[in-house]
Amino acid sequence: MKLIRFGTFGKEKIGVQIDDVNYDVSALGVDYNEQFFEEGGLERLQAFVAENAGKLPVVPTGTRLGAPFARPSKIVCIGLNYKDHAAETGAKIPEEPIIFMKSTTALVGPNDQVVIPKNSQKTDWEVEFGIVIGKKASYVTEAEALDYVAGYVLHNDVSEREFQIERGGTWDKGKGCDTFAPMGPFMATADEIPDINNVRLWLKVNGKMYQDGNTSNLIFSVPHIVSYVSQFMTLLPGDVISTGTPAGVGLGFNPPIYLQPGDVVELGADYLGVSRQEVIAYTQG
Amino acid sequence: MKLIRFGTFGKEKIGVQIDDVNYDVSALGVDYNEQFFEEGGLERLQAFVAENAGKLPVVPTGTRLGAPFARPSKIVCIGLNYKDHAAETGAKIPEEPIIFMKSTTALVGPNDQVVIPKNSQKTDWEVEFGIVIGKKASYVTEAEALDYVAGYVLHNDVSEREFQIERGGTWDKGKGCDTFAPMGPFMATADEIPDINNVRLWLKVNGKMYQDGNTSNLIFSVPHIVSYVSQFMTLLPGDVISTGTPAGVGLGFNPPIYLQPGDVVELGADYLGVSRQEVIAYTQG
Repeated sequence: MKLIRFGTFGKEKIGVQIDDVNYDVSALGVDYNEQFFEEGGLERLQAFVAENAGKLPVVPTGTRLGAPFARPSKIVCIGLNYKDHAAETGAKIPEEPIIFMKSTTALVGPNDQVVIPKNSQKTDWEVEFGIVIGKKASYVTEAEALDYVAGYVLHNDVSEREFQIERGGTWDKGKGCDTFAPMGPFMATADEIPDINNVRLWLKVNGKMYQDGNTSNLIFSVPHIVSYVSQFMTLLPGDVISTGTPAGVGLGFNPPIYLQPGDVVELGADYLGVSRQEVIAYTQG
Repeated sequence: MKLIRFGTFGKEKIGVQIDDVNYDVSALGVDYNEQFFEEGGLERLQAFVAENAGKLPVVPTGTRLGAPFARPSKIVCIGLNYKDHAAETGAKIPEEPIIFMKSTTALVGPNDQVVIPKNSQKTDWEVEFGIVIGKKASYVTEAEALDYVAGYVLHNDVSEREFQIERGGTWDKGKGCDTFAPMGPFMATADEIPDINNVRLWLKVNGKMYQDGNTSNLIFSVPHIVSYVSQFMTLLPGDVISTGTPAGVGLGFNPPIYLQPGDVVELGADYLGVSRQEVIAYTQG
């Protein structure tokens, strides 16, 4: 299944995408949140969609899409998980996964605008393959890790490089600004992806291809990552782990290339659809 | 006011503490969460307590206390914010606040057990003065920052030093293990503290005083911190910012002293009460 959420920011309704058409399933009376994943919501959703085949209301074309799940308890990210990206940033290949966290207030819909923060000069892009947790996971083994995954999602891990690298402390400072986590268009349940170790992911800015990678080049695999993170913190249903970005970010160019107001970022991944963000300057809200 | 939550983990009811007695205010029909703080809950609580003076049910002595608020959207922490603590860890005085994040799954009650994680050798303590946000805060100035604060809370920022420092990446890996954020006994509303720049905070292990500091020695003040963090991420009502720990952590000794099963940690701060955690080894849950 492909889960979507649509409507006004903060008041999204739930839906599913079938053959490129979005259907409203809000009659199910739930949101795609921790409780939903924890209490067998995916099975109930599947039954609901089957029972109502041909009768589900269509979501009008042009309706805003939200992030395909409610705000999770956490967004955990893996840093430098592609060799080519580690090389372009001048970093060593990590010996074990690098973990950082993204403020969940950064989460927005797949086609929402990305806001360059106040005082930012170095806002950058990062296409990523995101994991959505389906069951509470603590100290799970690599062999059982995929049993804890509900599905996958396309994520632009937008990053402010000065905040991240030059302002002291951890990377978290440059990762959690508002709008820095466009996710979607949909969450694909795990069964939608035949081989998670062979998913192409790409990103263009103003129509020019900058990133074109494949999860086959991940240094640490999806099962390894889920198992690894669960050694340090309990993952809750609906939590997201973003698995890192391949080469081609703005920081990797000489001189670096950063996002400017008016730029358009498009990104996609096999099985996970395409998203598109217009970049705007911060204006007092 | 002093806000408490009591009862079974994950099913806590709300209460208030008046003259060292805990009263049940669950008849108000809310939890101390984002919505509560956002929608004027503190004012409604105050009115409810005044209307029901003398009639509120007493919470039986011995009842477990939970964290004094529901799981926040984020726990942001400030690192190395006391000169003496920066010195004991061999770090330089930071030029601007160091930010890291603690997984909110680490949050527990003030007197709950602290679990030494699997494969941990270096679990350490950190008494901290925590800020609880009362209003959505984005790009707030230092002058207006205190208007965005609902209150304050005692926090033991339990830290695994090997995970934090020796395992690659950011500090987040050693900060968010389950039970690593005992908070409470209560949240004191801002009016309870006459001078936030003069709050003594201390921590003992097995009866021996290890930390004895005062917020007068903070490198970056509470208003500065709230303003600063709000430049990088939006703070939501109910979010916590922990302001850093004074000298006297286990890592600072030569050789370092780390927590062992059976140890008892007691900590306290002026106006914020006292908490007590027994340390236990991890056992398969």
